[in-house]
Amino acid sequence: MSLFVLCQMSLVELLKRLGLGALALTLGVEWLDWMLRRLWFRRDPKGPLKEVLFFPSSITCVEHLYCPNRTFPCSCPLPHGVDSSFSRLLEHLLSTSVSLDLCVFSFSHADLSRAVLLLHRRGVMVRVVTDRDYMSITGSQIGSLRRAGICVRHEMSKVVHMHHKFALVDGRKLVTGSLNWTATAVQSNKENVIVTEEPELVQPFREEFSRLWEASDPTKYKGQVPVNSVTKGQLSYSKDVDC
Amino acid sequence: MSLFVLCQMSLVELLKRLGLGALALTLGVEWLDWMLRRLWFRRDPKGPLKEVLFFPSSITCVEHLYCPNRTFPCSCPLPHGVDSSFSRLLEHLLSTSVSLDLCVFSFSHADLSRAVLLLHRRGVMVRVVTDRDYMSITGSQIGSLRRAGICVRHEMSKVVHMHHKFALVDGRKLVTGSLNWTATAVQSNKENVIVTEEPELVQPFREEFSRLWEASDPTKYKGQVPVNSVTKGQLSYSKDVDC
Repeated sequence: MSLFVLCQMSLVELLKRLGLGALALTLGVEWLDWMLRRLWFRRDPKGPLKEVLFFPSSITCVEHLYCPNRTFPCSCPLPHGVDSSFSRLLEHLLSTSVSLDLCVFSFSHADLSRAVLLLHRRGVMVRVVTDRDYMSITGSQIGSLRRAGICVRHEMSKVVHMHHKFALVDGRKLVTGSLNWTATAVQSNKENVIVTEEPELVQPFREEFSRLWEASDPTKYKGQVPVNSVTKGQLSYSKDVDC
Repeated sequence: MSLFVLCQMSLVELLKRLGLGALALTLGVEWLDWMLRRLWFRRDPKGPLKEVLFFPSSITCVEHLYCPNRTFPCSCPLPHGVDSSFSRLLEHLLSTSVSLDLCVFSFSHADLSRAVLLLHRRGVMVRVVTDRDYMSITGSQIGSLRRAGICVRHEMSKVVHMHHKFALVDGRKLVTGSLNWTATAVQSNKENVIVTEEPELVQPFREEFSRLWEASDPTKYKGQVPVNSVTKGQLSYSKDVDC
């Protein structure tokens, strides 16, 4: 629009056109933002994944989650084809394709351990930070993970508990809550787990994992911590050094 | 636009006008949606609150949070005017104006108890569901809450732990994580707390609280559970009956 035309226009007309222009610009920016958000979170047009699981979970057959391609049906006596909080949790964990970072206070659940070992065999990079005291309790799966070659580090302080219970699936899906990875927690207790891909929630947990991973690097404590003080039962401190 | 004018219009012109109309309609709907979301979540134009707090927290003076209107400065030796994870947690809890629903496994932190008692005195409707065993451990604040007249219920089963650690502020802000409400958890352990107003996360926790509140209604167990079996130390079963 030339200056000449602008001058000939009445004030009301000018304001009307400017107002319409501003409105169109605002709407255009919003539309662009909306489009970008929808392209970014392709799975769900409503936004990033947000799911809440409550426990105790009903006990159902989860065999199909470990072997999705097998042709014969499972003959175990548990209910089949039924979703439960635990099967959803397993599904989320088994969806990992690149990296799984675990920060778990107590880890003794055999099925969850089986899932982590399966991911490790598939080539997923698994890192585990756990609690110093609880990693050696009866039934702990930490020894099995280490024997399979999975990198496990633990809280170094004797007076502090690493009480988190979260997992980061491929660095972009957060699984966190009150649930320790034990059979009692899954089958008996009142517990919760949040599963989300919300970047504002995932990113702080990624940073926390990095902090804890670095802080529990055993090579930093090699000279200060006697090997025996962190060797309990089947767990060997020397295994940590390679992680 | 009349049918006569439409007939006189070329096909290209018609398509152009229809396209522009569709675009304007889409943008209008998006704009309306955007406006409604902004009106609904007034605090943050980016969407509902999402905040992550990690512990251990540094220990700072939080006196000003309990008495925001007092005129004289606090003379305690702790650092003043410094935000910490714990002060943020307290701020969120003390922002309650109508109702506070707590579902906490272990509650022995004196400052958190002080906050809950203060809210109760201000007229906030406080409801607490806690664990049967942990409510009577040394230092538990559950007795103080009950003596002040706050409704406390506990898990009825002897073999199950009520292991949640969440709070619902005015039914629309969720505070949840790995953190038990104890001094060790706040000051020593590696813990996390998520604070969010995301409806997709808040709503399931509201429903879980209602389920647990109903399930632990002591009047339902009056005939079945001997009073002595749920009376420990300063905690009286009979107090529950009114809640």
